[in-house]
Amino acid sequence: MKKNFILNIRTSFLLITTLTTLLSLFTTSKAHAQTNATWIWYPGDYEIWLSNKMQNRRTERGSFLPPFWKLDSHYVLIDFHKDYDIPTAEEAELAVDGQYNIKIDGKAFSGYPKKISLPAGKHRINMKVYNQASVPSVYFKSPHVVSDASWKVTFEDKEWIDASGKASDLSATKYVDAGSWNFNDALSMPSMFRLPVKPMKAVSSNKKAHSILVDFGKETFGFLKLHNVKGKGAINMYFGESKEEALDKLHGELADSITIDQAKADDYTFDGSRAFRYVNVVFDDNVSIDDVSMLYEYSPVEQRGSFKCNDEQINKIWDVAAYTMELNTREFFIDGIKRDRWVWSGDAAQSYLMNYYLYFDSPTVKRTISALRGKDPVTSHINTIMDYTFYWFISIYDYYQHSGDKAFIAQSYDSMKSMMDYCLKRRNKDGLMQGLSGDWVFIDWADGLSKQGEVSFEQMLLCRSLESMSLCANIMKDAQGATKYTALAKDLKTKLFAYYWNAQKHAMVHSRINGKQTDNVTRYANMFGIFFNYFNEAQKQDVKKYVLLNNKVPKITTPYMRFYELEALCAMGEQDYVLKQMKDYWGGMLNLGATSFWEEYNPDKKGAEVYAMYGRPFGKSLCHAWGASPIYLLGKYYLGVKPTSPGYNTYSIEPQLGGLQWMEGTIPTPKGDIKLKVSATEIKITSATGTGKLRIKSKSKPVSNGAAITTLANGSYEVSIEKGKDHTIKYTAI
Amino acid sequence: MKKNFILNIRTSFLLITTLTTLLSLFTTSKAHAQTNATWIWYPGDYEIWLSNKMQNRRTERGSFLPPFWKLDSHYVLIDFHKDYDIPTAEEAELAVDGQYNIKIDGKAFSGYPKKISLPAGKHRINMKVYNQASVPSVYFKSPHVVSDASWKVTFEDKEWIDASGKASDLSATKYVDAGSWNFNDALSMPSMFRLPVKPMKAVSSNKKAHSILVDFGKETFGFLKLHNVKGKGAINMYFGESKEEALDKLHGELADSITIDQAKADDYTFDGSRAFRYVNVVFDDNVSIDDVSMLYEYSPVEQRGSFKCNDEQINKIWDVAAYTMELNTREFFIDGIKRDRWVWSGDAAQSYLMNYYLYFDSPTVKRTISALRGKDPVTSHINTIMDYTFYWFISIYDYYQHSGDKAFIAQSYDSMKSMMDYCLKRRNKDGLMQGLSGDWVFIDWADGLSKQGEVSFEQMLLCRSLESMSLCANIMKDAQGATKYTALAKDLKTKLFAYYWNAQKHAMVHSRINGKQTDNVTRYANMFGIFFNYFNEAQKQDVKKYVLLNNKVPKITTPYMRFYELEALCAMGEQDYVLKQMKDYWGGMLNLGATSFWEEYNPDKKGAEVYAMYGRPFGKSLCHAWGASPIYLLGKYYLGVKPTSPGYNTYSIEPQLGGLQWMEGTIPTPKGDIKLKVSATEIKITSATGTGKLRIKSKSKPVSNGAAITTLANGSYEVSIEKGKDHTIKYTAI
Repeated sequence: MKKNFILNIRTSFLLITTLTTLLSLFTTSKAHAQTNATWIWYPGDYEIWLSNKMQNRRTERGSFLPPFWKLDSHYVLIDFHKDYDIPTAEEAELAVDGQYNIKIDGKAFSGYPKKISLPAGKHRINMKVYNQASVPSVYFKSPHVVSDASWKVTFEDKEWIDASGKASDLSATKYVDAGSWNFNDALSMPSMFRLPVKPMKAVSSNKKAHSILVDFGKETFGFLKLHNVKGKGAINMYFGESKEEALDKLHGELADSITIDQAKADDYTFDGSRAFRYVNVVFDDNVSIDDVSMLYEYSPVEQRGSFKCNDEQINKIWDVAAYTMELNTREFFIDGIKRDRWVWSGDAAQSYLMNYYLYFDSPTVKRTISALRGKDPVTSHINTIMDYTFYWFISIYDYYQHSGDKAFIAQSYDSMKSMMDYCLKRRNKDGLMQGLSGDWVFIDWADGLSKQGEVSFEQMLLCRSLESMSLCANIMKDAQGATKYTALAKDLKTKLFAYYWNAQKHAMVHSRINGKQTDNVTRYANMFGIFFNYFNEAQKQDVKKYVLLNNKVPKITTPYMRFYELEALCAMGEQDYVLKQMKDYWGGMLNLGATSFWEEYNPDKKGAEVYAMYGRPFGKSLCHAWGASPIYLLGKYYLGVKPTSPGYNTYSIEPQLGGLQWMEGTIPTPKGDIKLKVSATEIKITSATGTGKLRIKSKSKPVSNGAAITTLANGSYEVSIEKGKDHTIKYTAI
Repeated sequence: MKKNFILNIRTSFLLITTLTTLLSLFTTSKAHAQTNATWIWYPGDYEIWLSNKMQNRRTERGSFLPPFWKLDSHYVLIDFHKDYDIPTAEEAELAVDGQYNIKIDGKAFSGYPKKISLPAGKHRINMKVYNQASVPSVYFKSPHVVSDASWKVTFEDKEWIDASGKASDLSATKYVDAGSWNFNDALSMPSMFRLPVKPMKAVSSNKKAHSILVDFGKETFGFLKLHNVKGKGAINMYFGESKEEALDKLHGELADSITIDQAKADDYTFDGSRAFRYVNVVFDDNVSIDDVSMLYEYSPVEQRGSFKCNDEQINKIWDVAAYTMELNTREFFIDGIKRDRWVWSGDAAQSYLMNYYLYFDSPTVKRTISALRGKDPVTSHINTIMDYTFYWFISIYDYYQHSGDKAFIAQSYDSMKSMMDYCLKRRNKDGLMQGLSGDWVFIDWADGLSKQGEVSFEQMLLCRSLESMSLCANIMKDAQGATKYTALAKDLKTKLFAYYWNAQKHAMVHSRINGKQTDNVTRYANMFGIFFNYFNEAQKQDVKKYVLLNNKVPKITTPYMRFYELEALCAMGEQDYVLKQMKDYWGGMLNLGATSFWEEYNPDKKGAEVYAMYGRPFGKSLCHAWGASPIYLLGKYYLGVKPTSPGYNTYSIEPQLGGLQWMEGTIPTPKGDIKLKVSATEIKITSATGTGKLRIKSKSKPVSNGAAITTLANGSYEVSIEKGKDHTIKYTAI
């Protein structure tokens, strides 16, 4: 019986993961009450392993549907070490995920000890851990020595001996800092990690003789639970993001089936997580089911960001965007919950940006970036997509700018270099990137969009990637790298304008084919050029007029590229226009009953037609992370807060009401929140971090409760915002 | 209790490996009676996975002792496909190790089917399998379609779609032929593989109140079994390759301990395999043990080669050498059974050569070569040792020469190229290899041997490696590669003589330091130069006189380098001298009671001193594969058989009695055995393969039973040996 088989899998899963460490775990329970120690591993390895696990959960109508790109693995054998110096001997407890040894100053303890004595003085602890199935991980705890990021790890020792047993003094072992997250309990072995769940009831239920159609009231995600299941026969579950999808037994994207044979009623919780709002549970004659509920699975990140204003539709848009992000923020930032559930670099890059205004959860950003990169050798672009490789580079520097986290740059820099080597080797004789055999040039989902030749958008992303490399090289004090990447970026930027800027069209053209400029103007390179600040002022105005606000240039129909389009307009001060666009576009989805934002929205489509994509009637994802961009736009360009040095050490606040009467919100930062409330006459700010510069335009000189106000040109004023103070600024908005 | 824990591990192991396929297995049992289908995987992946498993079995006095180099992993997600064309529809059964889907022409079946219907006509089957813990593997069987090496596999699809769901026509997916071995039964999942065992009794047992000392009569390997164990307390097991080691509770290399608590007597079989001849089982007051036996673990390869002659000592040497090989031929060719139990490239390279004269088991050769190479990126030399990287290259071409197996060259060629790239990048400005940070220059275990500067031996091995690359490039029809590697080899060979040949010393010197020839003459480069055929005739004679037969040049004390030293002498016709050396050196070990051949043997050492190495009293391995070289020497240079074209399509037989009155033996080849019996007056040959050329010297023209005899110069004659005929040649040996 399938049900029993599934239960077996669960039991076995526990056996697998606890196998080698069962004893360790049980004997280290005392460690609970203490702090500081955390499970550690080779940096990036747990992220790769966990993403394999997550990305292989996709099914399509009951068929397993894994990613098509290469999945990498953790190093299976790791050496962990720590040099310590303690005044007196002390006892240590340890837990290990894998087969292991532990040595003090090179001398091994026998067997698999769970407790050891640390001698007083200066000594080195080495632990060597082998684990093929999951990531070699270590938890170590004594009063003064705990496992944490200060431990060093390596996947290969380069040490050797001569026939006398003397070790060579030519060691070339490369050590890096151990990776960790928040597994601070000896019992919480990283490989056992699962997201938490909570029970949720349907808001309505339509029960018939052989079926129950339940509606959970909004898009949701988790494990379906059938109550008091009894009898013998098949139960088919048809999931729907829309009611139409749940009722279409043949064409819904998600359907599962089980067979039961049980005389006594029992609850059945489905083993695989699914996305749905509606579920149509259909069962055989001899089967009965009392009720249907679910276990909602979620990532316990804290929603620190907020936004509220006088426009209820905008508030609703922000709330639904936040819920869309909640659903797509899981072990990693994924694309959408119904279909792929994979980590796509272009999608994730937007999630990071939205995250900076919603959660500021750095671990999820770092995990996602590490998982996307995988390991050397590089055999294809990230997700096989050329543009997605470039977003990956750019997102690392973005992360640094928001977080100030140099350790992550240090951890990633080598793999950034080898990824960039891969890209640079794929340039053509003119030094441009063109889709080679095996490269997917994606850009956007748009009918008839040309991917041929040398696409300007790709060169622009490469140029920005090279600039990111140059910045990271400087952070890493790699002077040679910085010089090289800076020169490459500069050279490419020159080419970008020489090859693609068309003065007659007042725009960058879409591509060159066979070395010749095409006539085609699209929005992509033009909008990125704005917020990359690649254009001069005249070019910006040209692009705004002849491209962004020009209805003859093909419209964008995905929230994905609308993200950047509206960002470009905001960056040029078009908040009024963008607010209307938001109300129109995201409001349009709400008007169609959206409870989360979609993968694609074309206002021209009607009825159930809106659910179709990829040639399938319910192919479209109705809960796609890239649909949540209002969070980013409202935080960065309306509340107007952004870092001006890494980690919000300094930041700027340039509020733009964009037609709203008032707005208030919270911007999370690494060291606390920035809260502000803005109307046309008053701005209140409290900040827990750094030094802010509020820049506003006012008809008369603003008045503040103590902060100095600097008068700039053109009716602009600057106010210095200090942390820990309640600032109130009275002004008269222009 | 420890015992129970161990039992749990075993149970769980089964659960792990059968987890996802349990149902598949049970429903495919009917497939048994049929043939052809075999389990398949991504080529090289099972080998890497299995070697991880094997190499992590080493313990040292109860402590886990894994390798220090990088261990790689299999690809965790693999796509398998097969295009078929069948006249009528048929049923197929399948078994899979991993989570999977199966599609026909891109359309997936629901769930995890164990049987599917194959439609008639031309279609494509795709299976996608994910398995993190063990290697994604597939077994498929219908009357006309079976899983085998004709299936194609890839670790990354490079396919993509547009918004309409249309797949791109720019696929760049790289497919290779599936890997397989001999898992021809749906129930024999590759991840469940274990070597077979058979029970063995001790030949003597010395029972005391709290101990039993058993002697198995000869070196052996496997799982210790304690009979009728009862009581409560500790049992300590001290293993010894020598009696001295087993009785030294403090310094023996292998010791294990268990604690029992059982009122009822029960047998206990130890979970970890160990090497030993003697075991001293010591137990507490309240513990009783009736008897000690073992389960002998072995590789079921067939011993096809044989050698017998009038000299009983030589016969004994051959037999003990064969037994030494038997013990070290396991999942892979390992170095020695007591200590490392790892795959070392230099050791393995000799095992391959001995294997060609003992088993001719190609799968073990291929597995070992693949396991040694691991995966890209190359981050160090193989086993971290420069010379061991070179042996790896050379051994691949050697394997081709013996087997004629082009498919393996095809499978390995890409990884040969990237390994050679790694080497070439590490050359210095003079184009020579010198130990860089992280490179272990090993050469041999020899006191005071210099590893500094540019060692001639390393350049010679690189030169031979480049020649191997050139030969493989030609096999792969890679003209550009062939040109490149040929030129590199030629250039290096020129340098070899320009830089290292010293006419005054009549030899290659050992090294250059700071670009200057040193005075040091060692045997290494000089003996390899002989059988690589790098020297002209005058140089050969010089080297023989001034190096090989010169007692002032430091002696070799490992069977490892004696292998090559004696090969060089045999290649120069010194079989009489070498026979005496064999009797002296290997006979010397036998005289000390050796039941298998050692890692090192220095006739000057006395008593228990002979067991010491690496500064440890029992550090030396008394069963080391490289000790078995008489098998190779007697087969290749006395019976005198070797291939002259790939796979023994043609071969030569040049018997040399070397002082023996008669000898007879069997040489295994890919297509059958070559058997011969040789005395000073008669040679009898039967061959099941190819065309042989027997070359002999005779005082008068030989007479054969039908074969044509060609007279060559200097009393030499050539006889053509045809397969399937019994040849008898009468002659008068000179």
